[in-house]
Amino acid sequence: MPETKLPIAFEVESISSQARAGRLTTRRGVIETPVFMPVGTAGTVKGIRFEELEAKDLDARIILGNTYHLWLRPGMEVIKLAGGLHRFIGWDRALLTDSGGFQVWSLGALRKISEEGTEFRSHVDGSLRFLSPEVSMEVQATLGADIVMVFDECAPGKAPAADARKSMELTARWARRSRVMFDTLQDQGLDTGRNECQEGLSGAQALFGIVQGSTHHDLRRESLERTIEIGFDGYAIGGLSVGEEKPLMWEVIEEIAPLMPSGQPRYLMGVGTPEDLVEAIGRGVDMFDCVLPTRNGRNGQAFTSRGKLNVKNARWAYDTRPLDESCKCSVCRRHSRAFLRHLHQTGEMLAGILLTHHNLAFFLDTMRRVRQSIRSGDFLKFRREFIESVSVLAE
Amino acid sequence: MPETKLPIAFEVESISSQARAGRLTTRRGVIETPVFMPVGTAGTVKGIRFEELEAKDLDARIILGNTYHLWLRPGMEVIKLAGGLHRFIGWDRALLTDSGGFQVWSLGALRKISEEGTEFRSHVDGSLRFLSPEVSMEVQATLGADIVMVFDECAPGKAPAADARKSMELTARWARRSRVMFDTLQDQGLDTGRNECQEGLSGAQALFGIVQGSTHHDLRRESLERTIEIGFDGYAIGGLSVGEEKPLMWEVIEEIAPLMPSGQPRYLMGVGTPEDLVEAIGRGVDMFDCVLPTRNGRNGQAFTSRGKLNVKNARWAYDTRPLDESCKCSVCRRHSRAFLRHLHQTGEMLAGILLTHHNLAFFLDTMRRVRQSIRSGDFLKFRREFIESVSVLAE
Repeated sequence: MPETKLPIAFEVESISSQARAGRLTTRRGVIETPVFMPVGTAGTVKGIRFEELEAKDLDARIILGNTYHLWLRPGMEVIKLAGGLHRFIGWDRALLTDSGGFQVWSLGALRKISEEGTEFRSHVDGSLRFLSPEVSMEVQATLGADIVMVFDECAPGKAPAADARKSMELTARWARRSRVMFDTLQDQGLDTGRNECQEGLSGAQALFGIVQGSTHHDLRRESLERTIEIGFDGYAIGGLSVGEEKPLMWEVIEEIAPLMPSGQPRYLMGVGTPEDLVEAIGRGVDMFDCVLPTRNGRNGQAFTSRGKLNVKNARWAYDTRPLDESCKCSVCRRHSRAFLRHLHQTGEMLAGILLTHHNLAFFLDTMRRVRQSIRSGDFLKFRREFIESVSVLAE
Repeated sequence: MPETKLPIAFEVESISSQARAGRLTTRRGVIETPVFMPVGTAGTVKGIRFEELEAKDLDARIILGNTYHLWLRPGMEVIKLAGGLHRFIGWDRALLTDSGGFQVWSLGALRKISEEGTEFRSHVDGSLRFLSPEVSMEVQATLGADIVMVFDECAPGKAPAADARKSMELTARWARRSRVMFDTLQDQGLDTGRNECQEGLSGAQALFGIVQGSTHHDLRRESLERTIEIGFDGYAIGGLSVGEEKPLMWEVIEEIAPLMPSGQPRYLMGVGTPEDLVEAIGRGVDMFDCVLPTRNGRNGQAFTSRGKLNVKNARWAYDTRPLDESCKCSVCRRHSRAFLRHLHQTGEMLAGILLTHHNLAFFLDTMRRVRQSIRSGDFLKFRREFIESVSVLAE
């Protein structure tokens, strides 16, 4: 163990094809990778209680919080007073916060990007706000998540090379400013989540860099080099799944993932379906987040081992089978498709609650099975069978 | 044990003042009384999973289903195919179904009442439907709840004596028709919930009669006599909390409860606040149902040992205390008023989910404490302190 303790430890334990199974040790526990992180936008993973996230059939070890949303509401005064995001929401396991960069970028015409940062109007009260690398780092220190993301700028999926270069270069400069501000805040002890960490860790927040560059491989490579040069605890691929064609997304991942530092976690932001996750793992990715299981669950869509199933479909009205006959989650152990359809048709909250639970169980269980297949050297076989199996049902 | 086994057994074990603590043994387990029954309108207690209803901090032993709602949607074909309501929704504990009488009465101008029954338009698809004692008993046999209610007619809270008499007499005739049809259906084995019952019970459904007569004491007494004459497994007081002044409600309960058969459960339908429950128990009532804990929870109102608390109030924005400092429910053990307020302000489903859980915990725990106070002979002291305590907080 070196003198200077690091905030996280990451160890790749098995590789099968390019897929990696490993252990990410954070100051709030160990996370087996590849890992899927449920999205807890406003301090809650929508439609599910924390007790369920911790229950055996889900056992989520890390969830996401959105800096943009939490900064605007309830605001940092409330969260600071509570002693950080963990305490405010009542979650002791690991948290990752994004930087707000993607969210303000998504505001489109409502935001104005300059060298200094991004000016935008709050969707909550219309007030003029300004987010920059420094502000984002300050907010994320107050939130006190275990993993913090640099403040980046995204380019549209089909951005021309000149625009994508500008955006990538801005991201590189913002990454450096993020790093500097992050280190200052750590020195000042402003990270609310700091703890006396076990396992030889420093107890500080970890900071991840983000690779941008749209679908231009040269820009992606340059972005990666410049990000590694600054130096981070992990590296993310941002700016994918934002309107580009899917084959282009795979090409970028195939190009970039092998060049990412092999001893540090690789995080593909905002992706995707269960198939996407398995495919990206096959290209060397370790971490994921996505709203699909929760958002689609609230809209009546279940992800199953036999493909997607929409509970509102009349064909399930008399179907006494569970959503997924090979699923062991608490919803599939107890409730039928007919009942779930009834709940959805009557507009009952329980429909969204139960589908969210099942979908998260399916995503998290898929990750467990992926890890197992990598460890046993059967990843390629698993991937082939999984992709085939989830292609069965139409909606 | 008599030759002819009864569907339920009821034993009053302690009386303190007029408050009774007892045991209601149904074909799906023992229920300590006084008992509060969460309302599961459409086959789900809104906003809460069945696992939570069963968890130690709630431990609901019986919940309600609404005949009217379930009959219209998903309809009896679906529920029959599932094997009854217990199986359809995945709930093994006791169920009580109302008759639909109150719900169709609530439709007001949209329904037409005749000697035969009530004609109305479905709120789901606008179709013309007809509900009568016979239809209600058929539907309730298909639902297979453990306790079935007779089909009754309610009169408005301020009904003149002549109208109230007409309504009461119709209810009496409908009660007899309900009894006859119920017995026929039992003979035909159409009760989907029938089981090989332990504890010397018959395994059949229990049927409760309903006393009507608005706020007219003579009509109430006559209704009670005529209902007892028909003979039921339990007796309910209906038609209260429907617009009459509260003192008039208490007068009716004080007049009628002592005349109800002391060896059978007394059920006050659709009432009320925690204070109402405690007051009614002091007048000899054993069973309650009400939507207040669930409906008000979804609207941001918490019932606590210090009174009602509306989470949207700005005064809770920085309040790190639980909703109720003396509550041991899973919500109060984990979450602060500040977090619950944040969830409510951001429109998160979790606000309703958590408030519903806490409110049900408070109602059910109040019943536990009431039973304890009756058993220890301290009910009057408990009631005095409880009413004083819940009068503290304003909204």
